[in-house]
Amino acid sequence: MSTLAKAMSKFRLAVVQLQVTSVKADNLSRARRLVKEAAGQGSRVVLLPECFNSPYGTCFFSEYAERIPGESTQVLSEAAKENKVYLVGGSIPEEDGGKLYNSCTVFGPDGELILKHRKIHLFDIDVPGKIRFQESETLSPGNSLSMFQTLCFLCNSSAMSDETWHPLGCCQLLVYPGAFNMTTGPAHWELLQRGRAIDNQVYVATASPARDETSSYVAWGHSTVVNPWGEVISKAGPEEAVIYADIDLQYLADIRQQIPITAQRRDDIYAVTSVQGAERRDV
Amino acid sequence: MSTLAKAMSKFRLAVVQLQVTSVKADNLSRARRLVKEAAGQGSRVVLLPECFNSPYGTCFFSEYAERIPGESTQVLSEAAKENKVYLVGGSIPEEDGGKLYNSCTVFGPDGELILKHRKIHLFDIDVPGKIRFQESETLSPGNSLSMFQTLCFLCNSSAMSDETWHPLGCCQLLVYPGAFNMTTGPAHWELLQRGRAIDNQVYVATASPARDETSSYVAWGHSTVVNPWGEVISKAGPEEAVIYADIDLQYLADIRQQIPITAQRRDDIYAVTSVQGAERRDV
Repeated sequence: MSTLAKAMSKFRLAVVQLQVTSVKADNLSRARRLVKEAAGQGSRVVLLPECFNSPYGTCFFSEYAERIPGESTQVLSEAAKENKVYLVGGSIPEEDGGKLYNSCTVFGPDGELILKHRKIHLFDIDVPGKIRFQESETLSPGNSLSMFQTLCFLCNSSAMSDETWHPLGCCQLLVYPGAFNMTTGPAHWELLQRGRAIDNQVYVATASPARDETSSYVAWGHSTVVNPWGEVISKAGPEEAVIYADIDLQYLADIRQQIPITAQRRDDIYAVTSVQGAERRDV
Repeated sequence: MSTLAKAMSKFRLAVVQLQVTSVKADNLSRARRLVKEAAGQGSRVVLLPECFNSPYGTCFFSEYAERIPGESTQVLSEAAKENKVYLVGGSIPEEDGGKLYNSCTVFGPDGELILKHRKIHLFDIDVPGKIRFQESETLSPGNSLSMFQTLCFLCNSSAMSDETWHPLGCCQLLVYPGAFNMTTGPAHWELLQRGRAIDNQVYVATASPARDETSSYVAWGHSTVVNPWGEVISKAGPEEAVIYADIDLQYLADIRQQIPITAQRRDDIYAVTSVQGAERRDV
């Protein structure tokens, strides 16, 4: 670890649980304002929710979709640069070549695009009497894994159900912009995050849109940050909020030393591999 | 699914949370009695805890170790046959070729040995001020994955931290004989089981020894059964107990249809593979 990296082994993370409306311009300006608020509280990394510029729903994706770069990612770039933060821009419906994707972009403190991740496992669910929702009716899946490195941490940005992949030992933070619902939210939202955290001994941060009972898809909210011991260290309610967590990479290193599961992997018996090379950007 | 298999799509599972003492003969006779009790309640499958014939501790493994077949597995075989149950015999310290293993045996209703699984990820932990325990000081790790099929279900028998492996889609029940402690128990025991259950949409059953505050390693207890939606459907306290759960393979199939994560696996992007062929026994 370099001297600079050591100096940054602690940093503040913010999750913006945005109240998303049907007015894209309002979503963008509100996101920009809350990123500024988060930076004002000392945050070095800020997360926005899945589908932060558009209502979440297959009937909306086409109308709200943009190319990347485009209007929404321009706002993200400017917000990252103005506030000198790493900004994980949740996701937006992306249009490219006649197809729609659910895409996450990440910007550095200089406003440069670090990464674009297209959700690879689309969300399809059909629980009779509860909820039916099929992203795959309108969206196309992405085809690559994504990881990026900042001065302070290695981060895997993917959708909630996306596989984490080996070697995850080098990742220290998993970020999941996600919009769970009133069926899967209470059942699985926190459980999945805590499970990912202890399985991989990493910090996990999730960013949901705030709940809107009047929308066709009612998001669960409850954006959360979990530490590598599996403990919830910060959690929003259902309403719009910015939550904060202080990430301590030395604590993470301690946990990995105390229970050395990474060193105990048995690559001679099983293997978890990336078939395609993961997209990885070091900045 | 055959007609017979359909008829057996529901079955009762029992977990025997045995109070393990330092007297091996007592452990064996008590286990035998509780297996009979479980069968009397209609159980088709019965689980015993990790290290059920010996106190759990590196200083005990050598003294209590046996060859397989041996005294303890003979008792298991007879108990399975007498009660016409599938008996997952927790684990015992096994001696073979001058090495010690933490080994799980599984017997069928005819008393035949179906499977022997040697724990592949040994449990090493060192949390300052809390607990230090290093299985690897005295035990050797096993070198193969294990899976077995009965008339009613496919089952993966492994130690708690052992990787589940692809394709797990065909497994319906994961069984984990495990002895968590007073540090990892409250933090991770239930969380890991529920995480495994929803990640793989399977039933998960864990069998711990009952808690003994006077022993050098104090087991957490709380043997548990979790359904494929991640819900705890049966759970013991810390003391000796037999707990029951009705396993419904149609419910499992419904969950897999409602959220089709197995069908959404992206084998074109990542792969989870068995490097050595898993040991699999169909009976």
